[in-house]
Amino acid sequence: MVAARGFLAAGVRCGIKRRGRDLALVHSERPAAAAGTFTTNRARAAPVVVNCEKLSAGVAQAIVLNSGNANCGTGKLGLENARKMAQMAAKALGLDEELTLVASTGLIGVQLPMERIEAGIRQAARLLSRRGGDDAAKAIMTTDTVPKQAAVEFRLSFGKARLGGMAKGAGMIAPQMATMLCVLTTDVSMERERLQAALRGAVASSFNCITVDGDTSTNDMVLLLANGAAGELKKKADIARFEQALHEVCRRLALAIVSDAEGATKLIRVAVQGAASEQQARMAARTIANSLLVKTALFGSDPNWGRVLAALGRSGAEFDPAKLDIDMAGTPMMRRGEPVDFDRKAARRNAKRKQVEIAVRLNAGAATSEMWTCDISYDYVRLNAEYET
Amino acid sequence: MVAARGFLAAGVRCGIKRRGRDLALVHSERPAAAAGTFTTNRARAAPVVVNCEKLSAGVAQAIVLNSGNANCGTGKLGLENARKMAQMAAKALGLDEELTLVASTGLIGVQLPMERIEAGIRQAARLLSRRGGDDAAKAIMTTDTVPKQAAVEFRLSFGKARLGGMAKGAGMIAPQMATMLCVLTTDVSMERERLQAALRGAVASSFNCITVDGDTSTNDMVLLLANGAAGELKKKADIARFEQALHEVCRRLALAIVSDAEGATKLIRVAVQGAASEQQARMAARTIANSLLVKTALFGSDPNWGRVLAALGRSGAEFDPAKLDIDMAGTPMMRRGEPVDFDRKAARRNAKRKQVEIAVRLNAGAATSEMWTCDISYDYVRLNAEYET
Repeated sequence: MVAARGFLAAGVRCGIKRRGRDLALVHSERPAAAAGTFTTNRARAAPVVVNCEKLSAGVAQAIVLNSGNANCGTGKLGLENARKMAQMAAKALGLDEELTLVASTGLIGVQLPMERIEAGIRQAARLLSRRGGDDAAKAIMTTDTVPKQAAVEFRLSFGKARLGGMAKGAGMIAPQMATMLCVLTTDVSMERERLQAALRGAVASSFNCITVDGDTSTNDMVLLLANGAAGELKKKADIARFEQALHEVCRRLALAIVSDAEGATKLIRVAVQGAASEQQARMAARTIANSLLVKTALFGSDPNWGRVLAALGRSGAEFDPAKLDIDMAGTPMMRRGEPVDFDRKAARRNAKRKQVEIAVRLNAGAATSEMWTCDISYDYVRLNAEYET
Repeated sequence: MVAARGFLAAGVRCGIKRRGRDLALVHSERPAAAAGTFTTNRARAAPVVVNCEKLSAGVAQAIVLNSGNANCGTGKLGLENARKMAQMAAKALGLDEELTLVASTGLIGVQLPMERIEAGIRQAARLLSRRGGDDAAKAIMTTDTVPKQAAVEFRLSFGKARLGGMAKGAGMIAPQMATMLCVLTTDVSMERERLQAALRGAVASSFNCITVDGDTSTNDMVLLLANGAAGELKKKADIARFEQALHEVCRRLALAIVSDAEGATKLIRVAVQGAASEQQARMAARTIANSLLVKTALFGSDPNWGRVLAALGRSGAEFDPAKLDIDMAGTPMMRRGEPVDFDRKAARRNAKRKQVEIAVRLNAGAATSEMWTCDISYDYVRLNAEYET
């Protein structure tokens, strides 16, 4: 998380959640170029609204984040509180208020405990350090069972640079043109529009390719701070190298989210080929990945390809059922619309693995898409039936 | 099911399922006007394809149905088998092949055991009777725990008439412009286009307003046979009375399906008011009704309105979050975009009831919509993880 030069972080407990750290602070020693992508949910949380305003300037120096409370569905007071939270962080760090971004995750519909948050921000500001990344990653967890961080070092024409990131998320995960809570920091810098475009591209092929339960969150947010401590990117080759690093870190964090999905026992890759358009390929992959019947079948290690067929049929993607190919866990199940006589025992054995692939060829065009998802288990139901309002 | 005059039915065991009756026959003593609605799933089962062809004539006299095997994803042989199944029934009843419709429900991707089906059809034809409705309703069950029948008698200008029906369904339920397996019989008759329009209208406000898991089946089908044994409908008032009866029977059967949904412990009504258009009202109601997070929260009797807000926000329906009203289990939770300070204990108590309502006012227009759904429990996961391919 703080692998990049010139970044400090801290994570503390201020008492929003029942236990554990719940407030994180990320600080760049100098103003950084800032980019962000946000949820497409119409019911946007207050911190999403506030950051969208602030990011128009394209510069930021600090991010304050809390878990245990989403500050969403909280009306006018919620918006005021999100602004106040940013002000408190700015004051504690001696920064201009405009340079401080804010993020929240947790329960919807309850106002933030502002006194606790103020105390937490002061404490976090005192504890900021180059080794605070682990604590910060822990402080943004909700139903996550492990903190999620990733970092890479990459070589540029003028030397080495670094990119680090942290993310949280285990439920209400179905990012669309957006993503879950994620903070990325890098010690390169680059022209702002390019930075935003690079982030959008990386998010499209990482966070936007995962789903746990089809429920797009109100608080999804990826923020990227690029402080230039290692230099500015101008050469095409350097920008390409950075974009590759950005893609790699985003993808690692996205897969870490699905792997830690609420109650999940399996990581499932859905690969769609031969669609008439990219949009149709995405629709097909997303519908299979969100099908409750497909997900519960795989929890039972049952390679029930009929449910994949049924999900495909309602996805809206065009295809001729007589040309369809379906494979599950490496076993051909349907070829050109005809059922394949497969070895059920062997197929069940393959479906017992920790990672299972569903591969579909629509044979209607050349577009492809992939989605990463998980199974739905008793524990998903338990966690979400017991998660208390 | 056979409340209407001139209809006979039977349900027998021919050995498709592991146990229980699995083949049903419905027979009208005279040719009947026939109407039908079918799944919008692109991967249509073979009997759906065959019936769509046959219904163009608008006349039918018998329906043969089996459970335990969906005859879907079965390629060319599956289509042949569906036609053969209709032929077998026609032969056993001494009818023209064109007058016999066919329906299947159960596992996808396995060929029908045609010898068993032939033996079953012969046996059912011998057992046809006015008291065979119960056996027929049992023979179309898959994971259903109770058979589903409904019948009404209604008074017309020329005397009394009757309408009866049976349906099955407990999972893979999210009918769209279609429905689950359902057979309706009536002893009135009427002009064919009006009959089809009446059925379409009744289905729109009954079967199309229910969802269990968001997974639209490949085999959804409603068939209506109107044999005219009690007379033909010509007067407007008589047609209106029939349409009302049709609506009532469809709605009772639709609610019976949701009440018997796989693993369900609660019946949930989602009512959306004040939408900008009917389509948007439906989108909002459907998205809330299919949200895994909303359904698992209610399994835990938790009135977690934040999840309703999040589902609304991703539904695609237009609304201003600052104007939103949300009630759960009779308790106001949000008013004009502001959270309401409600009594959590009392709200939890209300959410423990067997029937819970989620009411949303978008305050963006005048359109309304409702959906009936259920919670998602451990048993839903168990049933669908263990349902064997």
